Parts: sequence; structure tokens; C-alpha cells
Amino acid sequence: MTDQHAAQADLADLADRAAELDAADPLAPHRDAFVSTPGVTAYLDGNSLGRPLHAARTALAELVDGAWGDRLIRAWDEQWMDAPTELGDRIGRVALGAAAGQTVVGDSTSVMLYKLARAALGARQGRDEIVACADDFPTDRFVVQGLADELGLSVRWLTVDPRAGVTLDQVRGALGPRTALVLLSHISYRSAWVADMAGITAAVHQAGGLVLWDLCHSVGALDLALDEAEVDLAVGCTYKYLNGGPGSPAFGYVAAGLQDRLRQPIQGWMGAADPFAMGERYQPANGIRRFISGTPPIVGMVPMRAMLDLLESVGIAAVRAKSVALTGFAIEVHDALLAPYGVELASPRDPALRGGHVILDHPDFREVTARLWERGVIPDFRPPHGLRVGLSPLSTSFAEALQGLATVADLLSERPPVAP
Amino acid sequence: MTDQHAAQADLADLADRAAELDAADPLAPHRDAFVSTPGVTAYLDGNSLGRPLHAARTALAELVDGAWGDRLIRAWDEQWMDAPTELGDRIGRVALGAAAGQTVVGDSTSVMLYKLARAALGARQGRDEIVACADDFPTDRFVVQGLADELGLSVRWLTVDPRAGVTLDQVRGALGPRTALVLLSHISYRSAWVADMAGITAAVHQAGGLVLWDLCHSVGALDLALDEAEVDLAVGCTYKYLNGGPGSPAFGYVAAGLQDRLRQPIQGWMGAADPFAMGERYQPANGIRRFISGTPPIVGMVPMRAMLDLLESVGIAAVRAKSVALTGFAIEVHDALLAPYGVELASPRDPALRGGHVILDHPDFREVTARLWERGVIPDFRPPHGLRVGLSPLSTSFAEALQGLATVADLLSERPPVAP
Repeated sequence: MTDQHAAQADLADLADRAAELDAADPLAPHRDAFVSTPGVTAYLDGNSLGRPLHAARTALAELVDGAWGDRLIRAWDEQWMDAPTELGDRIGRVALGAAAGQTVVGDSTSVMLYKLARAALGARQGRDEIVACADDFPTDRFVVQGLADELGLSVRWLTVDPRAGVTLDQVRGALGPRTALVLLSHISYRSAWVADMAGITAAVHQAGGLVLWDLCHSVGALDLALDEAEVDLAVGCTYKYLNGGPGSPAFGYVAAGLQDRLRQPIQGWMGAADPFAMGERYQPANGIRRFISGTPPIVGMVPMRAMLDLLESVGIAAVRAKSVALTGFAIEVHDALLAPYGVELASPRDPALRGGHVILDHPDFREVTARLWERGVIPDFRPPHGLRVGLSPLSTSFAEALQGLATVADLLSERPPVAP
Repeated sequence: MTDQHAAQADLADLADRAAELDAADPLAPHRDAFVSTPGVTAYLDGNSLGRPLHAARTALAELVDGAWGDRLIRAWDEQWMDAPTELGDRIGRVALGAAAGQTVVGDSTSVMLYKLARAALGARQGRDEIVACADDFPTDRFVVQGLADELGLSVRWLTVDPRAGVTLDQVRGALGPRTALVLLSHISYRSAWVADMAGITAAVHQAGGLVLWDLCHSVGALDLALDEAEVDLAVGCTYKYLNGGPGSPAFGYVAAGLQDRLRQPIQGWMGAADPFAMGERYQPANGIRRFISGTPPIVGMVPMRAMLDLLESVGIAAVRAKSVALTGFAIEVHDALLAPYGVELASPRDPALRGGHVILDHPDFREVTARLWERGVIPDFRPPHGLRVGLSPLSTSFAEALQGLATVADLLSERPPVAP
């Protein structure tokens, strides 16, 4: 067989495999709950912006005619005042392994990170080091740098293998009596590496520090156990695997035992003990409400509710099982169709160490991504040359994953060989 | 005539007046653009939460099916990345008297206040006083207190006549070489007093300080001229007279000449010079974008666009003219129907000094408000005993204002006389 024939035989086998996997997938019927996109043959970026559910459209119309249009200002007393914690509790129960009263929804992820990191540093005065990862998402690094500059602290930057991520040993090596705060991504936005949340949290506590986990790429993609791991603080975004829509508000988690010892920096009326007393001095609310600042972003909270309903009905364990199967299948396709073109897998092969996406490296991927978009295949590009393939478990089929990666192979096959 | 007969005669006259005013109102046809509420006979709280426009429902559905559902992640490049400044520029043009490039939409009002106040204080190091008003809305006072505590500054609190507001002379008396920042509400959330923006701004500049105006009760209710008044900084909310929906994002204004000299505290990826470079160090964007922190709240930005369309088509001068007529009529009704029960006007009679609402004082108003709500008349209550009557110019008729205030008179007439 020629190479081309071999590739075609592989593709036919993989298409059979995809069809089998889709037929056996208990979550497959839920794909119809999402708005479909005729011009897109493979949406591989649900980990950057999740698709809308049809129910989101309905819920937004109901907001306009119902709570907002019909109840008007009365809806604040009737339901909206509690929305940040009611919705937080739901996220906690469905996706975080967090008991009620520890999760709040509001602000952007960057603002929530700032607030919780600043609060943690205030509770560890006398310690002057922050530990963070040099390969984490820019906002995490920028917030840490800003706070360190502002407060005269130093940052110990962990550097990692970009195809893996931060290890327990590495964190242990960076901890000490100066450690105030450790801020880490639970799942790397690049490699999808899953950090050892329980082990690292315990190590940070042993050193006397606090830990703040960034759950942006975790929440809704795999089961978390924040309470069990005795996590102090966490932040995550809701527009990826919680399908909350562009720029939907973040959530913040603060362990119950820690809440009343922390003060966050942005003292707004909605975090005050009695917002409507119009009191003279700011007195923070007890419990998780003190981490609210301004008026809760009610409109932006609406679409994610539909996804939480769906996640609750299927259970996060089933979502994680499909996620592992999807990323495993993507690796299979990579090995058969892409590795021959020099593409390299830059995510862990071990599913226990891998989140909901895989990243593939090839020097031509910046240009290839632009051409994929033209063909209706939508992955993300992450510099310097990573093609990030997000596989949102509830809205993505195995056939769609194959379609997308086969198009990558197609484009690579059309390219002239790299000059020697 | 008995008192009751006299009151009925007054009411009949006022009903005629209201009918005439509505018939002559050029903005009256626009009331149909808003969602109506069958159970509410008088909505007098549009200055707390503006009614939805029908167009908001349509626009949200279009977001779900269009930019979000159909363009998916591509919509960030195609339109959403520019949304904070594009929408900011529109607010600036339609309502603020601000040239393009100085207004940005995002965060809650409290967070935006914090960011701009902190940035201003950073630009006036060596000066250690903030001037603020003890009667301003809690969030303004709480943010100022928090920053003062954090940075070791002191606050000079201006106390005002609660039925009026801060005067130029009073501000002048508080300024000096220690003044770093003056934070004031342009329109008092209680009395509706309109502060002398141009005069106070000039006085603050003469003292070498910066001024930050809270425009929450101004924007969309009257014409502003930020550029002409050489305002440094301003913040406002969009869920009152811009009808953006519960918790819709705030806007921040930073004068062009000041932008590159200020650094805001929450360094997020969206305020960086190149958000997608994933660079090592935070480098703030040039211009107004540096005041963005996290991912822009796109869903929450949608409903206000319909109101900006409407405001642009009718012009803010026509809105202000109706606002003055509505509040003037409310005062007329107060004088005829409410003053006999001991109600006192706690807003300026001079329309040039009065914003878009009026506040009325009576010892029984806390209880009366609860009974008004039961009857479908919805004003706000502001402690200790203020009934705040908001009259959103585009969605409120003169007849509706009369209906609401006549119900107040009704309830007061039913009450037993106060014990001697």
C-alpha cells in the first residue's frame, strides 16, 4: 500500500470506531440540547467557549418577561439577592464537591482571583512569598505579579515541562516558612495536565501557607472534591464547560472555616452585613457573602443554569467518563493520522493525568489553524505551535472529533515538505 | 367643601393636567417599546432597575443563535473583543459628552470604582487625603474607606443637608495640598441634588487633585458634558436609566490625557497590551483598554444596547426635558395631595438642581411602601423615612406618576392620626 492508501484505510477504521463509540455513548442524546451550527463541522473549542443550550435562549426570554419585566425591582428581594450563593451552592454540589455556603458567583475570573489572592495574603502577614507557575494562564500570573509588586512580596515561579505540569515534589521544594500563598491551575490550559490537588494542598498547609486553585479548565469536565481535599480557596470560570456564555461571571470558593478570618479588598455594598441599612461603616457580611462586591450580574448568570440542570441530571462522573473516552480517542486519531506528519502529542497519555482537552504540537499549526477555521473546524491555537483540541463531553461526538482531526491531517498532507 | 371634597377636586384637576401633559409629550409613543407589567399600576423605581425593552428579548435570542451559537469562539475576534470600548464609546457619545476612546464597559460599579480610585491614588502619591461625601451611596463610601485603610490615607467626609447635597464652596473648603482624590456623586441617590460638576472639577484641579464622579443616577437621565468639564474619571451603572437589566456591567471613563499615566490594580489578561501573546510580564495596553481586567461580560452587555439605540434616536436633551417635566409634576402632586398629610419634599424645587427622581419624607413611609407594593405601586424606600419616586422619562407617563402618588395619599388618608 502507498502511504495515502494506508491513511485512507486508517481513516475508515477510525470512522467505524467513532460510530461504535457514539452508538454506545449514554450521553449522546444530550447533544440535541445544544444549539447546532450548520457551517461548523467540528467545534473543538468548547473549553474556551461552550456552546449555548437551547434552554438558555428560553431562560433569557423568561427573565425579560418574568422576573425582570413582571416583578421588576421586587425580584431582588424575591430571588436575585440570593442568586450569587444559590447558584454558587449549585455549582459546588454539581461540580466542585463543595458543601453549601462556600461558593459565590460574581465578577470576572481575574477580579475574583485578585480578591481571593489579596484576602489570603492579608491572612498570612509576615510571610513574603507567593508560589505560582510560570506556565499558567496569563491572568493568574499577572494578578500575582500585580499583588506582589503592590505589597512588596516576591514570587517563586515554578517552571514546568510544557507537555506536563507542576508536580507535588516540585511544589514541596518551593515551600517554606516564607510561603504565604500558592496559586496554581488545577488543569493546565496548555497541556491539560491534572495537578495533584489533594497532595499539593496538604503540603502547602504543612508549610503554613494557603492555596488558591484555578479551576477554569476543570469545572464541569471532571469530578472535583474541594472539601475532601481541604482546599482553602478556588476560582473558576463558567463559560467553558458550564456553557454560561461569553464573559459569564466567575465563581469563587472559600472554605467555611476560613471565611470569617479573611477580608477581601473591594468593599462594596453587596458584601456588607446589611446592604440596605445604608450604614456608615462597612461591616462585612458573615460567611461567603463577604466576598461579593457590587450588584450581582443576574443577566449573565442565566444561561449557565441550563447546563447545571443537565450536569446534575447526568452526573459529573458520566461526564468525566466520556471526557476520558473522547480525549483517548483523539490520541488514537493523532497516532494514526497525525504523528506521520510529525505532529507530537503535548498532553499526558495517562488519562488520570489528563483533563478535558489535548494539545498537539507542529511548527505549522499557526497557519493550519487559520485554514481549519475556513473549513469549519474550530480548535484553538496556543503559541508557540500548539493546536488545542477541546472536547466538551456533552456537546461533542466521537465522529465530530474525528472529522476535525482528519481535516488537520488533510491540510498537513497538502503542505509542501519543509525545506531541509 | 370638606377636606375630602377638596382633595377629590384636586385629584380631578391633576388627572386633567396629566392627560394634557401626556397628550403633548413627544416621547409618549416610545412607552410601547418597553415590556409592560399588568399587575403594576405605577412603576416608580426605574432609577433603581429600568424596565426591559422588548428589543432586549430579541437581542438576547439573537445572541444565542447568532454570535454565540453560530460564530462560537470566532465571535471574539469578530466583535466581542472590541465590545467594552465600542459600547463605552456609544455611552460616551449618547449620554456622557465624551469623545471616543475614554469609556469602557465591564465589572460591577463597585469594582470599577475601586479600580479607578486606586489608579488615581497611585498617580497622586505623597498626597494623603481623599475627600468624599458622608451622604453618598454606601458602595462609594465603603470603597473609599477600604482604600484609605489599605494605603494609610485619611478621608475628609463632607456632611450635607440630606435634602440638598454637596456645594462648590463646601468642596473648596475641604481641598488643599494633601488632597489626592475627590470622589462624589454627581446626582445624590437620596435627594436627587445635582452637584456642580464643572465648578467642582475645576476647583479640585486647582488644588492639584483628581476627581472621580459617580454618575449612577445621572447617566441616561440628563445631559452630561464630561469632556467639556475636564473631568478626570467617572463611573456609572447601566441598569437604571440605561435599562441594561439586573446587574448589567458598569462603565468607567478616564480622560484621554490621563490614561497612560494611570495603572489600575487588577492586572488581568484583557487589559494587557496583547492578550493573546500569553507573554511573561504584564504590559498594560495603551489607552482605555488598560482599565479592563477579565473577560468582558458580553451577555450582560446585550440589553442596554436597545436603550442606547432609543436614546440616540430621541436625543438626551428631549429625555432631560421630559424628566424635568415629570419631576416638576410630581412636586405639583405632592403640594396638592401629600403636603396636607405632613409629607415633605426632600428634593430641590429648582429643576436645574434636581435629577430624575424626587424623594418625599414622612415618618410612616416605611410601612406605607410595603402597602404600596401590595397595590402595584412600586417606589423605593430609603431610610430613615424617604419614599423615593423615580420617573424614568422614556417609560413613565404623567398619568402613571399621578396614579402612584394618589395611592400614597389614599394610604395616608386611611391611617389613624399620629398620637399627640
